[in-house]
Amino acid sequence: MQKDNLELLLKRVQSGEMNTEDALKQLQKLPFTDMGFAMIDNHRAIRVGYPEVIYSEGKTVEQVTAIVEHLSESGVNVLATRATKEMFEAVLSFNPNALYNALGRTITVINSTIKESESYIAIVAAGTSDLPVVEEAYETARILGNRVEKVIDVGVAGIHRLFSKLDVIRGARVVIVVAGMEGALASVVGGLVDKPVIAVPTSVGYGASFGGISALLTMLNSCASGVTVVNIDNGFGAAYSASIINQLK
Amino acid sequence: MQKDNLELLLKRVQSGEMNTEDALKQLQKLPFTDMGFAMIDNHRAIRVGYPEVIYSEGKTVEQVTAIVEHLSESGVNVLATRATKEMFEAVLSFNPNALYNALGRTITVINSTIKESESYIAIVAAGTSDLPVVEEAYETARILGNRVEKVIDVGVAGIHRLFSKLDVIRGARVVIVVAGMEGALASVVGGLVDKPVIAVPTSVGYGASFGGISALLTMLNSCASGVTVVNIDNGFGAAYSASIINQLK
Amino acid sequence: MQKDNLELLLKRVQSGEMNTEDALKQLQKLPFTDMGFAMIDNHRAIRVGYPEVIYSEGKTVEQVTAIVEHLSESGVNVLATRATKEMFEAVLSFNPNALYNALGRTITVINSTIKESESYIAIVAAGTSDLPVVEEAYETARILGNRVEKVIDVGVAGIHRLFSKLDVIRGARVVIVVAGMEGALASVVGGLVDKPVIAVPTSVGYGASFGGISALLTMLNSCASGVTVVNIDNGFGAAYSASIINQLK
Amino acid sequence: MQKDNLELLLKRVQSGEMNTEDALKQLQKLPFTDMGFAMIDNHRAIRVGYPEVIYSEGKTVEQVTAIVEHLSESGVNVLATRATKEMFEAVLSFNPNALYNALGRTITVINSTIKESESYIAIVAAGTSDLPVVEEAYETARILGNRVEKVIDVGVAGIHRLFSKLDVIRGARVVIVVAGMEGALASVVGGLVDKPVIAVPTSVGYGASFGGISALLTMLNSCASGVTVVNIDNGFGAAYSASIINQLK
Amino acid sequence: MQKDNLELLLKRVQSGEMNTEDALKQLQKLPFTDMGFAMIDNHRAIRVGYPEVIYSEGKTVEQVTAIVEHLSESGVNVLATRATKEMFEAVLSFNPNALYNALGRTITVINSTIKESESYIAIVAAGTSDLPVVEEAYETARILGNRVEKVIDVGVAGIHRLFSKLDVIRGARVVIVVAGMEGALASVVGGLVDKPVIAVPTSVGYGASFGGISALLTMLNSCASGVTVVNIDNGFGAAYSASIINQLK
Amino acid sequence: MQKDNLELLLKRVQSGEMNTEDALKQLQKLPFTDMGFAMIDNHRAIRVGYPEVIYSEGKTVEQVTAIVEHLSESGVNVLATRATKEMFEAVLSFNPNALYNALGRTITVINSTIKESESYIAIVAAGTSDLPVVEEAYETARILGNRVEKVIDVGVAGIHRLFSKLDVIRGARVVIVVAGMEGALASVVGGLVDKPVIAVPTSVGYGASFGGISALLTMLNSCASGVTVVNIDNGFGAAYSASIINQLK
Amino acid sequence: MQKDNLELLLKRVQSGEMNTEDALKQLQKLPFTDMGFAMIDNHRAIRVGYPEVIYSEGKTVEQVTAIVEHLSESGVNVLATRATKEMFEAVLSFNPNALYNALGRTITVINSTIKESESYIAIVAAGTSDLPVVEEAYETARILGNRVEKVIDVGVAGIHRLFSKLDVIRGARVVIVVAGMEGALASVVGGLVDKPVIAVPTSVGYGASFGGISALLTMLNSCASGVTVVNIDNGFGAAYSASIINQLK
Amino acid sequence: MQKDNLELLLKRVQSGEMNTEDALKQLQKLPFTDMGFAMIDNHRAIRVGYPEVIYSEGKTVEQVTAIVEHLSESGVNVLATRATKEMFEAVLSFNPNALYNALGRTITVINSTIKESESYIAIVAAGTSDLPVVEEAYETARILGNRVEKVIDVGVAGIHRLFSKLDVIRGARVVIVVAGMEGALASVVGGLVDKPVIAVPTSVGYGASFGGISALLTMLNSCASGVTVVNIDNGFGAAYSASIINQLK
Repeated sequence: MQKDNLELLLKRVQSGEMNTEDALKQLQKLPFTDMGFAMIDNHRAIRVGYPEVIYSEGKTVEQVTAIVEHLSESGVNVLATRATKEMFEAVLSFNPNALYNALGRTITVINSTIKESESYIAIVAAGTSDLPVVEEAYETARILGNRVEKVIDVGVAGIHRLFSKLDVIRGARVVIVVAGMEGALASVVGGLVDKPVIAVPTSVGYGASFGGISALLTMLNSCASGVTVVNIDNGFGAAYSASIINQLK
Repeated sequence: MQKDNLELLLKRVQSGEMNTEDALKQLQKLPFTDMGFAMIDNHRAIRVGYPEVIYSEGKTVEQVTAIVEHLSESGVNVLATRATKEMFEAVLSFNPNALYNALGRTITVINSTIKESESYIAIVAAGTSDLPVVEEAYETARILGNRVEKVIDVGVAGIHRLFSKLDVIRGARVVIVVAGMEGALASVVGGLVDKPVIAVPTSVGYGASFGGISALLTMLNSCASGVTVVNIDNGFGAAYSASIINQLK
Repeated sequence: MQKDNLELLLKRVQSGEMNTEDALKQLQKLPFTDMGFAMIDNHRAIRVGYPEVIYSEGKTVEQVTAIVEHLSESGVNVLATRATKEMFEAVLSFNPNALYNALGRTITVINSTIKESESYIAIVAAGTSDLPVVEEAYETARILGNRVEKVIDVGVAGIHRLFSKLDVIRGARVVIVVAGMEGALASVVGGLVDKPVIAVPTSVGYGASFGGISALLTMLNSCASGVTVVNIDNGFGAAYSASIINQLK
Repeated sequence: MQKDNLELLLKRVQSGEMNTEDALKQLQKLPFTDMGFAMIDNHRAIRVGYPEVIYSEGKTVEQVTAIVEHLSESGVNVLATRATKEMFEAVLSFNPNALYNALGRTITVINSTIKESESYIAIVAAGTSDLPVVEEAYETARILGNRVEKVIDVGVAGIHRLFSKLDVIRGARVVIVVAGMEGALASVVGGLVDKPVIAVPTSVGYGASFGGISALLTMLNSCASGVTVVNIDNGFGAAYSASIINQLK
Repeated sequence: MQKDNLELLLKRVQSGEMNTEDALKQLQKLPFTDMGFAMIDNHRAIRVGYPEVIYSEGKTVEQVTAIVEHLSESGVNVLATRATKEMFEAVLSFNPNALYNALGRTITVINSTIKESESYIAIVAAGTSDLPVVEEAYETARILGNRVEKVIDVGVAGIHRLFSKLDVIRGARVVIVVAGMEGALASVVGGLVDKPVIAVPTSVGYGASFGGISALLTMLNSCASGVTVVNIDNGFGAAYSASIINQLK
Repeated sequence: MQKDNLELLLKRVQSGEMNTEDALKQLQKLPFTDMGFAMIDNHRAIRVGYPEVIYSEGKTVEQVTAIVEHLSESGVNVLATRATKEMFEAVLSFNPNALYNALGRTITVINSTIKESESYIAIVAAGTSDLPVVEEAYETARILGNRVEKVIDVGVAGIHRLFSKLDVIRGARVVIVVAGMEGALASVVGGLVDKPVIAVPTSVGYGASFGGISALLTMLNSCASGVTVVNIDNGFGAAYSASIINQLK
Repeated sequence: MQKDNLELLLKRVQSGEMNTEDALKQLQKLPFTDMGFAMIDNHRAIRVGYPEVIYSEGKTVEQVTAIVEHLSESGVNVLATRATKEMFEAVLSFNPNALYNALGRTITVINSTIKESESYIAIVAAGTSDLPVVEEAYETARILGNRVEKVIDVGVAGIHRLFSKLDVIRGARVVIVVAGMEGALASVVGGLVDKPVIAVPTSVGYGASFGGISALLTMLNSCASGVTVVNIDNGFGAAYSASIINQLK
Repeated sequence: MQKDNLELLLKRVQSGEMNTEDALKQLQKLPFTDMGFAMIDNHRAIRVGYPEVIYSEGKTVEQVTAIVEHLSESGVNVLATRATKEMFEAVLSFNPNALYNALGRTITVINSTIKESESYIAIVAAGTSDLPVVEEAYETARILGNRVEKVIDVGVAGIHRLFSKLDVIRGARVVIVVAGMEGALASVVGGLVDKPVIAVPTSVGYGASFGGISALLTMLNSCASGVTVVNIDNGFGAAYSASIINQLK
């Protein structure tokens, strides 16, 4: 419907030629009128403490600092992922509330109180080398308002370690499994729980791990049902999806 | 066997109601009782209508028929995926309730009533060529007790088609996006909903689609948050994960 | 803007509370109201002879026949690509105007006269094995209203063959280069003309041609400026793009 | 034409049997005589402001400086792509007109006035991380004499941003789409315009983006017609092709 | 020909028992006697029952039959791998002792008694679809004189199944693990035993299993020590290596 | 040389200012005139027995037959590679001299006597499964006029077999090494001879041989100097190159 | 907990020796007791001198130092692989027994005497560039209590070098073959010995060696029986497996 | 040890001239005498000026210096490839004849006069970025005693440049073609000459050139006969093979 038609319609309503009911019907048929694109954003905006996220990779220190400063002014919480220590220090100089997770390479600035969920997300990791991805997922899940339990160093080569933590894992509403090298942990956990499992392959390994491809393929081919996968090293994405699920009404 | 049952058993031994020989047999029959390994299975078994699943690829007609027959006797519902028409006909000859979804290549045998969920799963597909994967996901979700809405042929090349179905998609509790070729639909849908999105790349396409790799990579790299991915053509896996999420309390 | 708001706005216009100018402004601010999504389609619809295209791969004979029949009734021209001879015969049985290009695997049904462009598209191919892709491109370009000149079997291993046809190639407004194996023809042609060159890698070859990957990479890395690339064996896509360019005012 | 024939022809000219006009015609038909390899170059040379292009990668500062100096003497415009800041400073020291685009890594030296096209090229980019490629394309298109409109940060995850700029995009004669990660923007734009779309995958992303392969495959498999593709990060190539198309008579 | 034999020959020449012509012939007939090249073969020949192996893929029925017939005449045991049923029937027609393992696609002809090892090889497989590889390994190990225990359908998605068979697995001198899809079983088993583990990836799976590549990479990247890997579907190779290890003195 | 110069030259010849000899010299310096593109072909044509080659893959029986018939009429020898038995029978029906190499899938028609080279090409192959490639190379080398010695089944797993044939291999002027699976033979042979070695990877193998990629990579990475490589299964190409080298004066 | 223990427990409950509460606790507490999960570890712990292994890649100097210090206190031997010189110096400062193998990048701390095996492992390497992997394997094998013989620079391009060391290689109980580039050495050695061969591809090479993929594929496709493979550059893994085999009773 | 020698030895044993003990020793001592393994080396050693080659990559400055010094003492010529400037300076300090080719990264030390071949090798390169590989090939060919002609910057995008140098190329006995990016030059040159063509793909390029894979595939798939290929950037290998061919008698 073109601008001219719209005007005509309005004039016909104005003049009484067309009643509002009919006009409404016609307007609703227009693409996107009734779809309210801003809904998601509004939805986010109105939830107290819902954060804005900055992917810092490939941005300058100045750019990251400026964005954080700008967002903080509006009182929103801020999460910057893949942030360097230098970025953090620049942010800290004007915002003393900024916190840095060196392993996870995240900056968090809490400007509004976050309400924590009752149910929790379990983040299960195969080895200590996977910690950077674990921490990125942890900070993301936390700032999105989730309770989180971490279970680290439970790789399948010593499977008793995993079993000794099974209660914690099974108690979660969603489970994130983080593993590099051969990534077998996702299948084993997937077979032990009846909750959604989000698998994050990591680039930990060498040789034929091909920077995470091996773990990625393992997880995509998981013989355990209920496992879905995100990009290599994408702790943020896993936590974001887990948070949506954890907070489903 | 739950903690309560274990206690009961021990008490019956203590009281002399049960001799140690019988107690031992029962304990030995339940490997993993004390670890709770069977919990998932039990959990499944007791939910009315929870199906057993047979992956038919690489099995003979005789094997599939035998398994279905065996399972049907115990009154459980049965889903056979990747089943040929020949398999279906063999199953049908002894079980008149068997149904075949030719597109989705599934056999379903409903022996127990399935209770349908209130919330629903939306299955959104880019093109008609993706229908086999859509139907596999559909049958899986249905037999697992989910209400399902299908939205087909809404590929991004004609994006107004997608927008005209946005209400249905946004109304779901979980969204499955099925797309081949370049798989861009997952990102677009991911940006339009605030529900978990499970993306299924399909092997639809030719040349540089590389049997689904192109769509798989697209989905793994999705710039929209909240998207997780399953294996190429894995309609079953997507629906299984979606069902777990849809039925989360 | 929600349905309720829309209704309110209309009522305020009706009651005179709001004038149509202000109402129009507000409506225009809504996403997509003033963008007219159907424009492209309309644009196509009104150009006489502009065809509808059916990608037949993975469709049944019945489906293709039904779609062609349906479209033909509305008088539009129809192009079905990747169509089998069986599909053609089914179409022919009810529509005697249908034509089949066996090499190019296309069905064309001309229901409205096509106006031919003055400028032409040159389709240049390395070898006779590339003919299926050439013919798909040819039929596509033709039904889209383009004059076409074909230059076949001018692979770079005998470069004098190419030079003997340079006049025809240079006379075109757009050049499509079709080549398999090592795909070097695109670079050589790209260096000899100052027109847009669209390169189509083909799956012709064996061994390390990897079903067209070798030619695809060659073309993407072309050291000649002015060369763009489409998917392996995508004669349709190349011709479609070439047609848009050839018919640019 | 063999040596013997050539001699014969010359003898017939010498003897007066054949006049020079006819001889010339026949000689011109010889390969390369009438093709005038320098034609393209001449064609370029005589268009005012048509630039010479230097690909600086793998060249030393001294080499780049020397080439720019040499070309500037002849009054031609010069574009150096993939140039470092150090190269620019060396060039600037002898040529005060040199300009550096730090993001796009281009040096431009305008020695002759460039006539700007009436129609324009739209450069549409998914994210701010794609800016280096955008700027390389921008500088290339500008020095080739094109009007350019840039539309940045309109990735498909927030598709309303794209729609709000649709007028600018649809007004162009050619559209360049620049996107990394999953590269879905090309398909969406391709479905919204009826102009030639040239897609540039970028190496933006991590993990399974594989340095741009994911975006490249997405674009090659685009379900939208009218999309052609260039090499990863090849902003120059996209702009060069776009310029040829934009300036087609 | 061993050192002792060489000495004997020389002494017989010295003593005149053998003339130089005959001695030369014999020396020439045994290439590599002095290097001991034939040692392995001799070594094999003298071990009672040591088989000759025929890789039947790409051979004709006639060729396989002829080789088996020829070998059987010399009384040696014969193993033909990747053999079709047609080949077997041809072999059976002249040799009634021939046996066919339809799943494993092996023909075995036992012409000499095989002495069975005391220690055994465990063949552990994830799923029933891996049986063809299991059976090839089984027949190979058997004809090489090994006791074998098979443990089937113990994939990691239901890890309790694996644990219930742990005694059998741990009792072996060598363990072969056969798994497709994600191949995680090798890592889990590798972490549970302190015996050499030979992992065989299988081509079981679809989509991103890429014909066994996924399982292969998983196994190569195994976080469990003591795991080595053979080619995809190479049941023969795994059993051959296992046999060497199992029979190490 | 531009049109103007050409005209001037002709006028000077016409006027007697320049004699035809000088004019000819200058014209010959023009691109392509003095290069005589047909030279190679002529060179081939005048060598008695030099064959025409038809790559039959993707051609119809009719096409191959027609080409062979046409060429035979002119008395030239003909080699058709990748030819089916059906093609051969069609050719044979009109040309009783046609011969078929079923393993090598070649048709040869000898219409002119071939002069055999004194020096010979050795074709060395790892296994009997490589014979199809060996035979294609053999027929190619033969019809190009080369003496050939074949050395088959000398794979590196039983290296004594190779050494027993070393004299034949070292006596050649060029060596072609044909091997699939791991392709190690090329390196070993390359280390044993001081003649040019042309390595042909074959698609023999399974699993991680990836249709010849494994052997191809092995050969490209050969640690032995003097080894060059052709495409997978390209027996024709290896023999063609070997023939050029073998017949170098 | 074994069957006997379970019976005993039940009997003690029956007899009243143990109350049900205590019995329940014990049953619940021991998920892994009856499976003997700790067995491997115990087994290792009680063998004198059995080392603990630290994979240092991706760990900080502080972390590695702390772990080594902690382990040394308990008197166990320690092996740190992929360790930098900086790590070594930090370790050395508090533990004067620490030794560094600069080529192999290993730190070893011998706190308990190691008993050396009688039989030995042969480590055979193609070139001097493979030494880092050789040394990692060497140190691993040594600290695990194995006698080791190294045979270096015996690549197949000069195969006589290999033959001159054949006695040493054949005398081993297990052979590790280390090779990069084309990795052919594994096949040749595999054909010459009748011992288990563990092949380690190395990342030595350039171009199409693809960081070790070429050698990896070669080894996986080895035509010699008895060869198994570990990950690229995984000297540790090869030696660990070799040690298990070498010390098999 | 040849047949004649063997016979002689046996006769001497027969006649009593030699006792069996000595005969046995000699037979056992000479694994390779009768196979003439050292022949190549001898052959090389006696050709005046034949160089020793050091692959410097992955060697320390000290190692390279020591090897060069050692070889120079024996009067042999030395070529070190992939050598750094630092290595050169270390070598120069004790050997003033050492020369460094900075582009080609080669050190050459001429201790014996090299006799130059009459026929020459042409090294043809697409662009100036390919010069490092050209220079490595040049230095290799030169020190191996070959006359060399270089033809640089004749990429196919401006094919007239190639044609203007065709005489030089056709005059060679062997042609080396060096090209990166799309590598099309090899096919074009292969179609223009009837000499052996050795193609060297280079890692020049970006994006989908994948470090030389694109050029490598192009060259392997060359539609021109007579082209063989070496590893990416392997200028040394190409020149070594070319030298063998150029010096064939």
